[in-house]
Amino acid sequence: MRKPDRRPMLGVIAALAVAATVPLAGEPRAQGPDGQIAAIRAVLDKQETDWNKGDLDAFLEGYWHSPRVVFQSAGDRQVGFDAMRDRYRKRYQAEGKAMGKVAFSDVEIDILGAGSEAAYARGRWRLTLPDGKTPGGLFTLIFQKLPEGWKIVHDHTSSAEAPKPPASH
Amino acid sequence: MRKPDRRPMLGVIAALAVAATVPLAGEPRAQGPDGQIAAIRAVLDKQETDWNKGDLDAFLEGYWHSPRVVFQSAGDRQVGFDAMRDRYRKRYQAEGKAMGKVAFSDVEIDILGAGSEAAYARGRWRLTLPDGKTPGGLFTLIFQKLPEGWKIVHDHTSSAEAPKPPASH
Repeated sequence: MRKPDRRPMLGVIAALAVAATVPLAGEPRAQGPDGQIAAIRAVLDKQETDWNKGDLDAFLEGYWHSPRVVFQSAGDRQVGFDAMRDRYRKRYQAEGKAMGKVAFSDVEIDILGAGSEAAYARGRWRLTLPDGKTPGGLFTLIFQKLPEGWKIVHDHTSSAEAPKPPASH
Repeated sequence: MRKPDRRPMLGVIAALAVAATVPLAGEPRAQGPDGQIAAIRAVLDKQETDWNKGDLDAFLEGYWHSPRVVFQSAGDRQVGFDAMRDRYRKRYQAEGKAMGKVAFSDVEIDILGAGSEAAYARGRWRLTLPDGKTPGGLFTLIFQKLPEGWKIVHDHTSSAEAPKPPASH
């Protein structure tokens, strides 16, 4: 297993291509920025896996189960776990809707502060839906290390505008 | 001046209505979460003021002047101060464009980690343009306390979809 190097933690955006640099095999170390980044990456990997099994409740375990978790998208802010879960259910589990398959890419994770109790992640999301549509966009996630583990306390997700067809050029 | 109370800093989203609770008169204290929140709020207030003077360069002083600052919106990620500044110039200072007046609202600021070197802010933005249009949406900002002061190191901004006219109900 690769010996982790120490990275500067303050005032520095490491902009890691995390999947390429952080070994995910084995138990993530409890301490140290590399171990924290691996633990956060594992939350995102689990979210992808759970989504792609169609298990929305398991996917939602990545979030802080609190009335103060916040989800922002477009011009809408959902406050509280229940409101956020309802949004997901309406968009992806209502009649005629589908969860499809999700893939995260270009994920960059940075530990914030000397205590390694907070971090943020940015990345791209892309859904592949049964009807062939592939909506996608970007996300920004604030993580906090809580007694129950690393959890998303704030999510800002945006959708790319529909790509213009070549004919419109 | 109100004596600041100590707030729990870890695992807690204070969800402060900042404008209502943090005194902004006088010099922000250098230490303590309330002082840090006031200092971050002052960055946002200065951004509003600078934007509304049409001074884009002064507005941009709120950001980390680094090739690693990141601006995400819709499906586009700009990496680096110059790319971000160019995006602002093209959208708001090109021929036929206008900066208009901006207003931030529902701003909530949370300090992340025990060292008080990082924080995030979420809120709403609304522009009032000369043609009468009022585009708006939400933002999430990651702040870090750098030698040059509190700076935005990551910005995720989204636009609300155009409101549906009553006739569509």
